Amino acid sequence: MKLCLKPIQTRSREERVIVRCCYKEEGHIGSCEEFPYLSHLNVVAPRVANKIKRDATKTTGAAWKSEDAGPNRIDRWAMLLNEEELLKKYKVNLSVLKPSVQAKLREKAATYEDCMNVAAKLTFLVYQMKDAPTPPDLIHSYLENHFGLMSFGSTKCIICKDYLSFALFDEAKRGRAHIETAHANPRIHNPENVGFAHRECNIAQGNRTLDEFYEWMYKILQRVEWKL
Amino acid sequence: MKLCLKPIQTRSREERVIVRCCYKEEGHIGSCEEFPYLSHLNVVAPRVANKIKRDATKTTGAAWKSEDAGPNRIDRWAMLLNEEELLKKYKVNLSVLKPSVQAKLREKAATYEDCMNVAAKLTFLVYQMKDAPTPPDLIHSYLENHFGLMSFGSTKCIICKDYLSFALFDEAKRGRAHIETAHANPRIHNPENVGFAHRECNIAQGNRTLDEFYEWMYKILQRVEWKL
Repeated sequence: MKLCLKPIQTRSREERVIVRCCYKEEGHIGSCEEFPYLSHLNVVAPRVANKIKRDATKTTGAAWKSEDAGPNRIDRWAMLLNEEELLKKYKVNLSVLKPSVQAKLREKAATYEDCMNVAAKLTFLVYQMKDAPTPPDLIHSYLENHFGLMSFGSTKCIICKDYLSFALFDEAKRGRAHIETAHANPRIHNPENVGFAHRECNIAQGNRTLDEFYEWMYKILQRVEWKL
Repeated sequence: MKLCLKPIQTRSREERVIVRCCYKEEGHIGSCEEFPYLSHLNVVAPRVANKIKRDATKTTGAAWKSEDAGPNRIDRWAMLLNEEELLKKYKVNLSVLKPSVQAKLREKAATYEDCMNVAAKLTFLVYQMKDAPTPPDLIHSYLENHFGLMSFGSTKCIICKDYLSFALFDEAKRGRAHIETAHANPRIHNPENVGFAHRECNIAQGNRTLDEFYEWMYKILQRVEWKL
């Protein structure tokens, strides 16, 4: 599938690091849009649409928010900049943070293109959750052109491999959603490596790759002789 | 082993809910003490001694600290009081907290006696960690009289069952210790149910009992067909 990719004017007054692009198909009609496949979720489930945009494009990290360091979420592609550029273009001062926190933020780095592909992939997965709204035909075909055939009700937690229900987005527990964006390898942010997971699975996986996590569990079950 | 259990005057000006007691052996010489078995760790590893006292007797819960609700740590036995008594005696206003947060705090409730026995048990386990300091004879025999023979280097993480090293208390990561006090059943605070665990193991276990946790892991490994 060929994309339009024409530059989009952003309203942000920040000095621009990347040029945001139109992700409609090439030769589309109507105005350019960065997240055309979210137009439906923007209306029927705006919190989910915002979560997709946020998780795909921003770092997390409430832990490091401070007056000295800057805001607690930042574009993932900013984490590709060196300290000087980061301070100049984002007013973020990495050097005041502990080395371990800096390293954790740097791990979240990703190109704009990878982030955009992750956003589309997450949308593709959301529509295939049990109880998810049905995508309009245009979005359905856009997502299938990107990632292959969709099978409704097929999206699983990438960690425990159990089916995920769209309804879990609404069941907030102590202010936190039950579904989180998760990474098979926490240090790689691209569509192949990203999916959704139960919050409890994501917490348990921690900073391990999925294979490391399964092996860690396997060794524990061996030590406690749990049905093995 | 018979204990002295004479009341100890506390310096706290809070209205007293329980009478703190002397946990030296009955007929001891010298002044009464609440944590006599910590006198050595108080000197050689004060942070560990304080952690034992804190984890044994206090709730956790930075999440609920607020001007409306009160301090973020509180005596576990206070959680046995009703709302009215809690407000009167501890200036803690549970009713302003969400029901789920209230329930989580109530789960931490324990009698003073159970807390004191947990503190002694944790001390017993600390001295049996690899690289731990050697306890003075009096403390050694006090703890063995309480809990049976000690075997140095034998303390394991109650979750992953791997050996724990005393040195882990010092390896702080983002301000947090690598060893945490853990519960086989998170809702029971007594010596039989309490031990130490790796921080990552404790996080992964979450709010499950150990058996629930192992079964959860087992089912995941079955689904991903990990060496099973």
